[in-house]
Formats: sequence, structure tokens, C-alpha cells
Amino acid sequence: MHIAVLGTSAVGRAVASRTAELGHTVLMGTRDPSATAARDEFAAWHRDNEAVQLATFAQAASGADLVINATGGDASLAALRAAGELAGQVILDISNPLDHAAGFPPTLFVANTDSLGEQIQLAFPAAHVVKALNTMNNAIMVRPRELADGDHTVFVCGNSAEAKALVTGLLQEFGHRDVFDLGDITAARGTEMYIALWLRIAIARGKSDFNIKVVR
Amino acid sequence: MHIAVLGTSAVGRAVASRTAELGHTVLMGTRDPSATAARDEFAAWHRDNEAVQLATFAQAASGADLVINATGGDASLAALRAAGELAGQVILDISNPLDHAAGFPPTLFVANTDSLGEQIQLAFPAAHVVKALNTMNNAIMVRPRELADGDHTVFVCGNSAEAKALVTGLLQEFGHRDVFDLGDITAARGTEMYIALWLRIAIARGKSDFNIKVVR
Repeated sequence: MHIAVLGTSAVGRAVASRTAELGHTVLMGTRDPSATAARDEFAAWHRDNEAVQLATFAQAASGADLVINATGGDASLAALRAAGELAGQVILDISNPLDHAAGFPPTLFVANTDSLGEQIQLAFPAAHVVKALNTMNNAIMVRPRELADGDHTVFVCGNSAEAKALVTGLLQEFGHRDVFDLGDITAARGTEMYIALWLRIAIARGKSDFNIKVVR
Repeated sequence: MHIAVLGTSAVGRAVASRTAELGHTVLMGTRDPSATAARDEFAAWHRDNEAVQLATFAQAASGADLVINATGGDASLAALRAAGELAGQVILDISNPLDHAAGFPPTLFVANTDSLGEQIQLAFPAAHVVKALNTMNNAIMVRPRELADGDHTVFVCGNSAEAKALVTGLLQEFGHRDVFDLGDITAARGTEMYIALWLRIAIARGKSDFNIKVVR
């Protein structure tokens, strides 16, 4: 596939690195490619991941089979708008609506009666938004078999069965064994609100090296 | 122990039945004992659970080693106030702040920057509130070994280590093998907000016969 990864932070780098390793063509979108390339941390990562091309949000998304939103929740709508109309394209939305303004642990800037996944679908009505992977750290997202041989759960939700099938295929390529379909995009309220519990588990453990399994 | 179970709905009945079976002395608190006793569904259950005594909220809580709040979230503060000041007593709070007014699935009437567990602790400053068991259905709460031999997680949080130890002991008597301490009572935000995900999983499955395991 031609994959656009929007966002160059740790989540974006993990997803770009893994999808390139799996043989996909990966363009990484950022607001200002030359500024991103000049950053030491990114440059060090990029030397080890030369197959990933750096581009603007719009260049990355143009013609992509899959647009992965790996930007921070508070930057997601702006980044996606910069990427274009995304008509007919599949958006895999990994973001969480974290509000860091009020201290730690962060709260959510949208919850309960709405979600960031729904806001993105509303802003891009001709795109097919699939929420997934936002319930675990980036290492487990892309290499799930390294935790309990993958015996844990990743959720997908979205309004398009076809788009969910495409995302599910990529998750299985990553190594996910239990891809749980929660239904339409309103279920993003569930996976985003779970972050409040994820944060407390991570704080109690002092690390984020865990995921949940739906035992049934 | 002398245990007060506040609330006579399915959750209260499951907890009362199981704690009595385990040999504890159980008083079940309700607003109007004679009205509750006259209800067919309750009466049928009570015939099979004669060891459980029906009482007012205040009678049930008086002198109890453990007060279990098994009332609905929107009725919890009123029920607990009717039970007394509860000074020095341990409250195991199972409730969820479900708001059924706006349809299905319910939203939460408090979330994100506060929780029902915290509101109860604030209203009863001399009591020791422990939030637990609110993340699974009542059958799994009290007989966890019947699901995957108990290979799943129950969370506790609260400000008193001693109160959490008392509740943890009861959870282990129920059969819980993985009691996860999330920290102080503010972590109730995490377990209560998880209900948004729990509801979506239950809807997708068409049943509530599951629990999550923290895989680490």
C-alpha cells in the first residue's frame, strides 16, 4: 500500500518504521518538512529509516491508500485539514483527545457525548475514518507479539466495513491476533475514554508496557 | 464480617447472596423494607436467600465492618446519606454514574475531571471509600472463576491502604486472582470512564459475559 503517516513524533515514527519494514511505501507528513528534518531526534531516527520519505501533509496524503493520523489530538483536525479533503480515502485515527493544560494526568478535551474520532469523521464526511490503536503504547501498537505473544486486544470502529477490513489487515500484519470490531465511529467514545483508565494503570505500574485483553 | 449491602437490584442481590454464602452476616439496606419485600422479583430471590436480612439503609449500615454501595449511581449519594455518617467505616463503592436520560447507550453524569467515587468520598470525609467491581457484570463480580478460571483483572482504588486491604480480601474470597491497585480515589475516574468502552464491547457482543485482563 501507499501509506501516509501524519505526525513525526514517537507514534508516527513507530508506525512509519513498521509499515516501511513490512514493505509498504511510506510518506511521512509534517507541517514543515525542512524544519522536521533539521531536528536532531528526527534526523537520528530518519538515518535508520531511509525508506520513509518526508513530505508535507498534503503531499503525503495525495493518492495514499491509507492516511494514518498519528498527530497529537489537539493538532489532529488542523493536520488533517492541511492534508486535503481526503475524499474516498481511509483515515486510521490513532489520536487521543488529551488536554495537558490542567496538569497530570491529562483530561480529555472531548468525551462522553462526543469523541475526536467522530469530530474527524464529521469534518471529513467523504473520508472513511477508522479509530484503532489508540489504547496502547506505540511499541505494542506495531509489535504486539512482543507482549504475551499477542494475547491481547486491539479495537476498531468506524462507519465503513470496507475501511475497517483494510485497517484490520494492517493490524494483522503488525501481529495483532484479536482485532475487536466495536461498531460505528461513535464507539470511539469508548476507546478514547478508556485512556483515563490506561493512564491510571500506567501511573500505578510506572510504565506503559501493558495492554488489555477482552476475556470472554 | 458484618456486611451492609445497600441496594436490592441485581447487583445488590448478587453481592448479598455471595457474601452470605461465604459466611458473612449480611444486612441488605433499602429505603422502604416492607415495599421491597412485597416486590415479586425480590421476594422470589429472598426465599432462596433467607440468611440475608432486609433492613433500612441506616439499620443495615449501623456497626457494619463493610458498607457496600450497590445502588444505582444516580441514587447513591441519597442512599448513603440515609445510611448515616459512616464515620470510620469502609465503603465499597460499586456504582457507575450512568445517565439513562439521553437514551442508549447511557452517558456518564460525572466524568473526566471528577468521579462518583470522589463525590462519595467528599460527602463522607470520615469514611474510607474504595471503588471496585464496577467494571464487570454482577455474575463475574462475585464468581470470577467461572470466566477463564479467573484469569482477568479487578481494580481497586481509594485513599486508605487499610480499607483497600479489607476490600481486596473480600474480592479474593469471591475468587478474584488479579486485584490491581490503581492508587487513590481519583483513579475512580479511570474505572468509571472505562464503562463507556465496556458498554460498546457488550453491545458488539450482545452480552456482558466478559471482563478485561491487564496483560503485562
